[in-house]
Order: sequence, then C-alpha cells, then structure tokens
Amino acid sequence: MSDKKPLILVCNDDGIFSPGIKALAEVAEEFGDVVIVAPDRQQSAVGHAITMSVPLRANEMTVASKYKGFAVNGTPADCVKLAHGNLLERKPDLVLSGINHGSNAGINILYSGTVSAATEGTILGYPSIAVSCTAYPEDADLKGAQEAARRVVRYVLDRGGLPKGVTLNVNAPEGEFKGIEWSRMADSRYVEEYEDRKDPYNQAYYWLTGKFELLDDREDSDIHVLNEGKATVTPIQYDLTDYTLLKEDGDEVFM
Amino acid sequence: MSDKKPLILVCNDDGIFSPGIKALAEVAEEFGDVVIVAPDRQQSAVGHAITMSVPLRANEMTVASKYKGFAVNGTPADCVKLAHGNLLERKPDLVLSGINHGSNAGINILYSGTVSAATEGTILGYPSIAVSCTAYPEDADLKGAQEAARRVVRYVLDRGGLPKGVTLNVNAPEGEFKGIEWSRMADSRYVEEYEDRKDPYNQAYYWLTGKFELLDDREDSDIHVLNEGKATVTPIQYDLTDYTLLKEDGDEVFM
Repeated sequence: MSDKKPLILVCNDDGIFSPGIKALAEVAEEFGDVVIVAPDRQQSAVGHAITMSVPLRANEMTVASKYKGFAVNGTPADCVKLAHGNLLERKPDLVLSGINHGSNAGINILYSGTVSAATEGTILGYPSIAVSCTAYPEDADLKGAQEAARRVVRYVLDRGGLPKGVTLNVNAPEGEFKGIEWSRMADSRYVEEYEDRKDPYNQAYYWLTGKFELLDDREDSDIHVLNEGKATVTPIQYDLTDYTLLKEDGDEVFM
Repeated sequence: MSDKKPLILVCNDDGIFSPGIKALAEVAEEFGDVVIVAPDRQQSAVGHAITMSVPLRANEMTVASKYKGFAVNGTPADCVKLAHGNLLERKPDLVLSGINHGSNAGINILYSGTVSAATEGTILGYPSIAVSCTAYPEDADLKGAQEAARRVVRYVLDRGGLPKGVTLNVNAPEGEFKGIEWSRMADSRYVEEYEDRKDPYNQAYYWLTGKFELLDDREDSDIHVLNEGKATVTPIQYDLTDYTLLKEDGDEVFM
C-alpha cells in the first residue's frame, strides 16, 4: 500500500439512495477515502447478473452530502466492474458492498446482488466484503451491522487482504452489536413459492412469495449464529467445483 | 420412480425459441416426457436473478411443433421455480438447461443463466444438468453437445440421480462428438471490460467488451479439456463456504 489513505469502493444492491449504503460509507470513511458506485435503483435478487445488451451510464453525484459517487443504470456486479475499469482514478484497496436491508445468509447468498458485487470485487483481485442486516425497513437500526463491518474491515486491513478468491460475507441482526462469530453458509431453500392470481381479464399471473426453509441444524451455520442474536462472518469462494463427486465418479467414462 | 416415463423439464437462458433448447429437448425425448419452461426472450448473463417486483406470466404453447411448453416473462431461475411450484402436473425426474449458445466454462459459470436454472433445479431437489456449446451462432452444429448431453443424462438416470446439492455442468465444442472428460472449473476472469463511448449529445456511455483471461494451466480444467476438442462435465455445488479460511482464521475474534 502507498502512503496514500486506502481507497475504499462502496457498492450495494438497494440503490445509491438507500440508508444502508450511507451507513457503510460512514464505516469506510474511518479507514480511508470513499467512492460510492452503486445502482441508480433497487436491484435486489439480481444475483450475479451483468448487463451486455444495453450501454451503461454513470452519473457522477455527491451521496449523503459528502461522498463522491456514481449512480449506474446497471446491476451491482456491473457497478464494481465499471468502477474498476473506468470510473476510479486509482485501484481500490478494498471493496465493500451493503449494508443490505435484509439477510444474505444461507441460500440467499446465491440470489444476492449485494454478495455478487463483493464476489466481483474478489474476481477482480480486491479484498471484498459484503455486509447485510436482517431487518428490511428503511429506518432499521444498522448500528450493530456497522460495528460488525468495522471489525471485519479492520481484520482484513490488518492481515493485508484476503486469500485469493475469498470474499467475506457479513450478516448482522438489527440494533446493538452483541458479538460476531465465524460461520458456514447454512443449507436452506425457499418453498411454496408463487401465489397464483387472476388479472382483471381473468388471465393467470404468479407472484413470488417464497417461504424460507432452514435445512441445517448445525451450530456453526450463519443462520444459527444470527438466530442467537450475533453478527456472523462467512468466508465464501467462487470455485463451484464439487471435488467430492469428481473424486468418487472420476473414472466414469460416459458410454 | 413410478412406472410412468421420466418427466424431464427443459429450460435455458437464450429463450424458448432458440435452436439450442430444441436440440436439448430432442435428447430429453429419448429418455422421457418433455415439458419446456423457458424465458420468452434472451436472458443471457442474468446469473441467478429472480423476479420479485413484477408478476410472472406463463404462456402455454407448443415448441418446435411437438413439445409442450410455457414461455415465461422471467429469468431462467424463475422458470424452474415456477415449473416446480405451479406449472407441471407432476414433479420432474430431471431438469435440463440449455443447450446454451456459448461456453459456460470457467468464470462464466457465475454469470450464466443456463447454469443457474440447473442450480435452481438442484436446490429444489431434482437431478439437474446444464449443457452449453462453445459456438455462439444460431446455426451452430450442436451434434457433439447433444451426444455429450445424451451420455451424461444416461449416467445420471443409471445412478438414480445425483448427490444432494450437486449439479452437472456440461460444455462441448461445436461439431462432432470427440469424447467427454470430467473437469474442474477453471480459474479465469474478464479483463479490459468497457468501451468508453460518447453519445450524440457528447455524454459518456460504456459498453461491456470483456476479454476472457485464463488464469489456470492445470490439465483437468474445463477450459483445457474444451481446448483439446472434447466435451467436459464439471460437478458443481452451491455451498460457497470457504472452509480453508474458516479453518485457518477460525480463532480470530474481530476486536
């Protein structure tokens, strides 16, 4: 690292005007210079989508009356790619994504734009952390999530980054900070997923109403730690290879 | 399995009118009854996005003059969820996604709607296979990809499914079948990602032009096998936990 203050890129998936991104920028500011590059609107549940069919725009603006920011008409992953390739004057030392309004624990990790922005940061070679709070409301108390983020940022900067390919996924309950623990991604899924309705012309339409189902009773899962009232940090990586089956069936020749 | 023929759900991300989905349905038909539930338009690079903010519609139609199908105004993952929850008369025995026009090897797995549809099938408890061909053109010769799909479907049905949480990701070169091998997901990324242009009003816009970079020289990677002219099957799973860092730094207490 140079003698300059660390440059911290802040992104999210709730959009550049969300209270959560301001809360995360406040934490980032304690450690370095902050630039916000975030979607110009709500982009929840976009997963690792990237935009190829339309051009992207980046409108420079000041966020929360103090942070340099760019509002992008794209997904969270687009924002990090575009920041890396075109918008930042120097390469960031850290990528932070969040604070998401809503948990990104368990299977939610797969659908999460917040986590995908951080994963994209990791792919591009930057230490990256996603931060979420379990509470959805706009006025949720994010103090505990901020404290969790603060501690994890300090840990990452102190250790001089993260191992290649590893992203940290932080989740915190609403309200006061009550400790933070490492965890695994809980096995989980959504069930009973669509409400079947009729429109005014008697045509069917379907509205997503997934009910979260926990399939994991191990005490070291992210959801278990959250349910105990603590924040949690889960190291995740993007090599999806299942080495177990590769080893077991690796001599199968597919006749 | 009952005495009924297996029910095979076929999805993709190129849309229900793509030649690739017809090619995959032809293979599926050799093994069971086919229902196609696919996006009503191109949905490439949407990753594991799901639609929450607008309702979904499913228009029943006949695909390629013979297959029962539903065109959905959603993402590939939406299609599989909606098929599972509302559209199919019985639960599928197998979920196939593809044949994608374009490789889904290496880091492309993360951005791929094709792979996400299969992963969603796995999350819902069905044996699921994604199939892609490296060639983009609409009239690409998919015979090799079809043969690879055929062999992998046979393997999965013969072994009575797949281990919990595991999806198979199949990629094949264009043209004749020249063998198939197991592989790992190659470490890779995109570089030099956006062209910086000006619109007629001299305002900047950015167009994605990523150049694929292979960071992996191991012979058992999916891209290496493809470069040798063979098809490849990579088992993937969705527990993203990095157990290595969890073990190494698991006593870190985040002061």
